[in-house]
Amino acid sequence: MTSTITSSEIRLVSRPRGLPTLENFERAQSELAPPRDGQVLVRNLYMSVDPYMRARMHEEAYMPPFQPGQALTGAAIGEVVQSQASGLAPGDIVSSAYGWREYFVADAADVRRIDRPFQPVSTHLGVLGGTGLSAWVGLNLVDVKAGDRVFVSGAAGAVGSIAGQLARLRGCFVVGSAGSAAKVRMLRDELGFDAAVNYRNGDLLGELKAAAPEGIDVYFDNVGGEHLEAAISIMRPHGRISACGAISTYNDERPSPGPRNLFEIVTKRLTIRGFIVLDSLDQMPRFLAEVTPLVAAGSSFAKRRSSRGSTAHRRHSSTCCAAAMWERCW
Amino acid sequence: MTSTITSSEIRLVSRPRGLPTLENFERAQSELAPPRDGQVLVRNLYMSVDPYMRARMHEEAYMPPFQPGQALTGAAIGEVVQSQASGLAPGDIVSSAYGWREYFVADAADVRRIDRPFQPVSTHLGVLGGTGLSAWVGLNLVDVKAGDRVFVSGAAGAVGSIAGQLARLRGCFVVGSAGSAAKVRMLRDELGFDAAVNYRNGDLLGELKAAAPEGIDVYFDNVGGEHLEAAISIMRPHGRISACGAISTYNDERPSPGPRNLFEIVTKRLTIRGFIVLDSLDQMPRFLAEVTPLVAAGSSFAKRRSSRGSTAHRRHSSTCCAAAMWERCW
Repeated sequence: MTSTITSSEIRLVSRPRGLPTLENFERAQSELAPPRDGQVLVRNLYMSVDPYMRARMHEEAYMPPFQPGQALTGAAIGEVVQSQASGLAPGDIVSSAYGWREYFVADAADVRRIDRPFQPVSTHLGVLGGTGLSAWVGLNLVDVKAGDRVFVSGAAGAVGSIAGQLARLRGCFVVGSAGSAAKVRMLRDELGFDAAVNYRNGDLLGELKAAAPEGIDVYFDNVGGEHLEAAISIMRPHGRISACGAISTYNDERPSPGPRNLFEIVTKRLTIRGFIVLDSLDQMPRFLAEVTPLVAAGSSFAKRRSSRGSTAHRRHSSTCCAAAMWERCW
Repeated sequence: MTSTITSSEIRLVSRPRGLPTLENFERAQSELAPPRDGQVLVRNLYMSVDPYMRARMHEEAYMPPFQPGQALTGAAIGEVVQSQASGLAPGDIVSSAYGWREYFVADAADVRRIDRPFQPVSTHLGVLGGTGLSAWVGLNLVDVKAGDRVFVSGAAGAVGSIAGQLARLRGCFVVGSAGSAAKVRMLRDELGFDAAVNYRNGDLLGELKAAAPEGIDVYFDNVGGEHLEAAISIMRPHGRISACGAISTYNDERPSPGPRNLFEIVTKRLTIRGFIVLDSLDQMPRFLAEVTPLVAAGSSFAKRRSSRGSTAHRRHSSTCCAAAMWERCW
């Protein structure tokens, strides 16, 4: 084929202030030249929409900012449609950083073939992609082990839901927070969390104390702000905090003040460690070796399997931790 | 002798709200029975007045609170006056937790004899006591090594001044903050800091940026609050924070909000570690083995020796880090 392909894509039009609105984006058409030698044409099947992308909409971001007028980027899973590259054939499932568009043409080196894809293939964006890696790296960073009492915020989110389940499988007591009664039920009834609280009830600290009366040893922080303050407040001596993200602050036009109880870092001898999954891509093989069998087993990943299939699969396309910059994580 | 000894002592009368006032304390007389078998009578020569004591004036403290009506306690250096204990003789210099009083009677096990005391003997309260140990433990906690750019807040204080000098001796670039022009001069001209800023000038962040244009790798935090925010702001990726105290907050009636830039813990992959020197008393011998020769050398401890003697000696009786609970640290 030599004709061009028309693809639609989502572009940033203007940098949002506060909560993004539709006006900050546009759907546009682009014409793609057919793949040349060593290239493939891919049709995207799934893409990931992630909190860190909000940070990239700022002019000053901790990774290269999105540029107005250009298509957004992000992790995606697609199917090879045409190939001029050896080792890649039509029908192959590949992951890439070319999200936010229908089709793309790329060098073979810019996609990664997934040998035995799970169904749905979005699993490789989620629990077996950067999302899962983020959860796993964040747990390892603070040495989460059997017997730890672990609190996960944003626990119904992509990273949080996996962090909580992995901690549970390691023999931890796990409590999660989420923002609706339905999510709280899912955490408890489907994902096997020992306890879950709805932070929108208005008394996060009180509910946490009730859910974890002996306090917590580990806090997996996706949220920051009030959650971080509450977590510090119920931490036991020598507690550890894995700082993965701070969703509560991403849409702030002005930075919000932080927790009022940071002196407890001293009095409780706490450790806080921030991380970005991008630094740990070399651990992907070790991560996949450990977690792929859990996903394959399905029901063992969550304590109670939902009749709709492995819950780990069901959470794949949710939002993901800001730190999970897995565009290069495929 | 069998007559009682009259000693004066300082008692807590009421729990201060905000800044303590004289009315919160009283000077009172007490009658001491002569030492019995195994006991000594000690006359105090020096005592330490430390920030952590402010925390103990609250009803809820991170260590047992002071009780109204009772004498305060704290680290002190004294001279044995009478002894009924083997191994202790009149004239011996001892350290104890019986500060805030002129004389005390105690079991021999509750004092520690200092074999070859430095002059002034208060050195053993300061650089060779809990103060010095706090500085040393805090530096080791975040692995401070040659080439690190280190910022120390409360740098003219007892712990900060030693932390800065030890870091300098390890081959670090060291910048300190203090609250007056005279202290800033002392840091630069006597203690050998590479740079020093006066936080009362009103632009801490701006002055810090100018003093450490390449940013910092380590922050030794004695202050919290605005200092912590500024330090996070100029930290380089993978920076480390040793959380020793939060002087800026100790007199708050209501807790102040924390830094607004905590998300940088994630984006810069920072590590924050809180500590209390009490946990590290077993390291005292190793600390003394390393730091005693530096103090003995005098001029080598500070880069430039003041004509008034070793500057390390001169800082011994200042206030000390809240975390330095060296009552048991002698």
